Amino acid sequence: MPKDLRPLLDPETVAVIGASAAPHKPGHSLLRNVLDGGFEGRIYPINPKGGEIAGLPAYASIGDVPETVDLAFIVLGRKHVLGAVEACAAAGTRAVCIVTAGFAEGDPWGREEQARITAVAEEHGIIAIGPNTIGTISMGGRLLGSFVPFPHWEDGNVAIVAQTGIYAGAVALELMSQETQRIGITASVDIGNRVGIDELDLLEELAARDEAEVLGFYLEAFSDARTFLRRAAEVKRDKPIVVLKPGRTQAGARASASHTGSLAQDDAVVQQLLAQHGIIRADDSEEFLAFLKALSGRPDGAGDRVGVVTYSGALGVMATDRLVMEGLTIAEPAGETKAAIEALMPDWQSAGNPADLWSAVEVDPRASVEVGFGAMLADPGVDQVLGVLLAVPNADFDGFGDAMARLRAEHPGKPVHLVMHGAVRQSWMAQIDHLGIPVYASVAQAVRAVATLARRQATRDDMPEAHAVPDPAGAR
Amino acid sequence: MPKDLRPLLDPETVAVIGASAAPHKPGHSLLRNVLDGGFEGRIYPINPKGGEIAGLPAYASIGDVPETVDLAFIVLGRKHVLGAVEACAAAGTRAVCIVTAGFAEGDPWGREEQARITAVAEEHGIIAIGPNTIGTISMGGRLLGSFVPFPHWEDGNVAIVAQTGIYAGAVALELMSQETQRIGITASVDIGNRVGIDELDLLEELAARDEAEVLGFYLEAFSDARTFLRRAAEVKRDKPIVVLKPGRTQAGARASASHTGSLAQDDAVVQQLLAQHGIIRADDSEEFLAFLKALSGRPDGAGDRVGVVTYSGALGVMATDRLVMEGLTIAEPAGETKAAIEALMPDWQSAGNPADLWSAVEVDPRASVEVGFGAMLADPGVDQVLGVLLAVPNADFDGFGDAMARLRAEHPGKPVHLVMHGAVRQSWMAQIDHLGIPVYASVAQAVRAVATLARRQATRDDMPEAHAVPDPAGAR
Repeated sequence: MPKDLRPLLDPETVAVIGASAAPHKPGHSLLRNVLDGGFEGRIYPINPKGGEIAGLPAYASIGDVPETVDLAFIVLGRKHVLGAVEACAAAGTRAVCIVTAGFAEGDPWGREEQARITAVAEEHGIIAIGPNTIGTISMGGRLLGSFVPFPHWEDGNVAIVAQTGIYAGAVALELMSQETQRIGITASVDIGNRVGIDELDLLEELAARDEAEVLGFYLEAFSDARTFLRRAAEVKRDKPIVVLKPGRTQAGARASASHTGSLAQDDAVVQQLLAQHGIIRADDSEEFLAFLKALSGRPDGAGDRVGVVTYSGALGVMATDRLVMEGLTIAEPAGETKAAIEALMPDWQSAGNPADLWSAVEVDPRASVEVGFGAMLADPGVDQVLGVLLAVPNADFDGFGDAMARLRAEHPGKPVHLVMHGAVRQSWMAQIDHLGIPVYASVAQAVRAVATLARRQATRDDMPEAHAVPDPAGAR
Repeated sequence: MPKDLRPLLDPETVAVIGASAAPHKPGHSLLRNVLDGGFEGRIYPINPKGGEIAGLPAYASIGDVPETVDLAFIVLGRKHVLGAVEACAAAGTRAVCIVTAGFAEGDPWGREEQARITAVAEEHGIIAIGPNTIGTISMGGRLLGSFVPFPHWEDGNVAIVAQTGIYAGAVALELMSQETQRIGITASVDIGNRVGIDELDLLEELAARDEAEVLGFYLEAFSDARTFLRRAAEVKRDKPIVVLKPGRTQAGARASASHTGSLAQDDAVVQQLLAQHGIIRADDSEEFLAFLKALSGRPDGAGDRVGVVTYSGALGVMATDRLVMEGLTIAEPAGETKAAIEALMPDWQSAGNPADLWSAVEVDPRASVEVGFGAMLADPGVDQVLGVLLAVPNADFDGFGDAMARLRAEHPGKPVHLVMHGAVRQSWMAQIDHLGIPVYASVAQAVRAVATLARRQATRDDMPEAHAVPDPAGAR
């Protein structure tokens, strides 16, 4: 039977055991972030000294809190964690999130202590995540339960599960530090050393939650790779699943062991299983974010015929190389498409794919965007449009954002991906923010994201409507 | 005998044929940029209407200019270019840079007209670049002879040669649009369709110029691959050479043909020749810039034993994977190095490589930087240091830049490379600007740059002191 994760994901009461008035301490930052994030429930700081912390009355122990707590964060020195979990058990606390590090990823004492914590949580039926986690974030009740502060939190359709100490925070932070192009996240759960809840529980829970449309997993080791992948294969028709799994080399696997206490898994086997089950694998952190960004706007994917609009022939050539190497198709534009674009060009130039619009930009930057992108978007033989633009003053015009918004509204079903170089980039990015047009750091990254959408659609097209995926374990 | 390229690279008099008072016209932008860039010589706008342009008296024709012009930019409709080159020949102009597009990359008329232009230039011994170029930039006389405007030009030790229309501008623009991390460029010559001067001429010239310490070539097709690579091999002990050559796929090669009129070359042959001659190849535009940035600070390269300092164990694992996959060595830190770093850590944690400093950051962010980087830099078994940092408020402290500057001064010979995620990134980048510490967009890019420095040193170590590289053609 699936575990009831509501105390973790939708808590109404939260305690911070180890809340501190001293800035820079994680016990302070975490409480501060829960408050600043606008948590809609009740918050109880716990500190043996009592008094007041961040304007709230502090309780000496979890047992003193006047109601049963759904979720207690534990931010204490590692010698005090077991005692705090026991106090939670005695007080009937439903879930704990152990932020403190220094357990299975540390020394023999830490491994043994983690086993003792696990036993207490199991005995009392406490939902437990951590230790060694930044915390947990879920937008159900607006809970930013992390000691990493996020400058601008953006709610959305992506859910992230990470088995790591700080990295889940790093991912969310990287996204939320951006002035533009923030991916909306509905939940980010850092399961840390997995004392209780693991990625299998969260996959099951998030699969059932409508607000989580795209799922991203950072895993240093699977709890149970075959079960995870079988369940992921069942979910993937409805929701794309991206897995970032490092430790691909022996040295990486060793570094992973000292980081999360995970046992190394043979990467060749992992790779084969992921491919077999059609699960998207990101090669690194930047790609993980790029894939989530692309899928966030288009969870159902798109076809593989790509139209390229560029302001630099050279960048168009490089994009073509990358597209072909990723197995995508360079779309053959229709006669009307070519005619529309050629009308912008000097008479010696002919339009192709990539459509190199620089000479048109020099004459009329607005028309280059409106007609160049417009014709590619209208072409029934083009599934996705990749723009590689020079964001230079000569190419700028009043209303760049409005023009892109109109194109987006006229062709809502066709993904547009952008790469932009130059001084006007920030301005253009601000103007097109929230239009669902991902902007990437490089052509290579953009092409990988385009390919991910194409593979996503192919995966869905290959699958039966119902979730009747054969069980590879059962089939044997 | 090498051609005398001084009229092109060190002109004292410049004319802009097709100078225009109308903003947005390339003939206006180019003149504006030459003026704003602070060209130290004399400038003559040429326009049949005469009058005044940008505050300078305009001449009706190049023949009316009261002195012989070193370098004339030609920014006219394509039908008028041949006439302008003939006028230059008649006036004794020493070099021409034909910005106008629509020649060999366009239609049959363009191809024939380009041949006629070539004939006139050859007959009169005019140094000619273009057509289809953004222009030419050289810091000898502070000539920003491009129609692309550069927000902040930075002089330096990198020289770029590009066979393309706008891409050379895109590269320089991307670099010069950054608030920080600008690579200093001493010359950027866009040879366009190579009507006269080609990459062989420029390789020879730049090899002889002390101010050009790192050479980057963007080539869609080699004029003569074997000769280029033989000469590059002779130069490479003194100066690293990075080649970006797209058209790796058939579709890319076709796109290239329509962009510069180049004939496709078999990429497998190109790849083999580059590897044989030990020339660095960048896979795409972003990598080209990353390699030039790394080499700019360290043209002689560095060893392959890498020490990783990170604030996220997960990012450390991913960095380890990438380093191993690129053939680099994860350095084994000395006992003293480990002891110094462990002194910052809680007692359950041991220091390794990657050194995961997050728990230390939580206690003392300044010590984490000073001791963490300091110990890795002091370790004789570490050749290069890669920092993968979380630029978060918890990790920030007053004087981050000063701390890095001191480390840089104490260990000037050892390259430091950084990747940073988080809201404080921009502030840290500003604080360490001009310390010669490259900051990359991703761990993957950083690792490729680290590997480039390692291969660069290996290349030098393998080569005899003198330029006695055997000539592979001659050896047969």
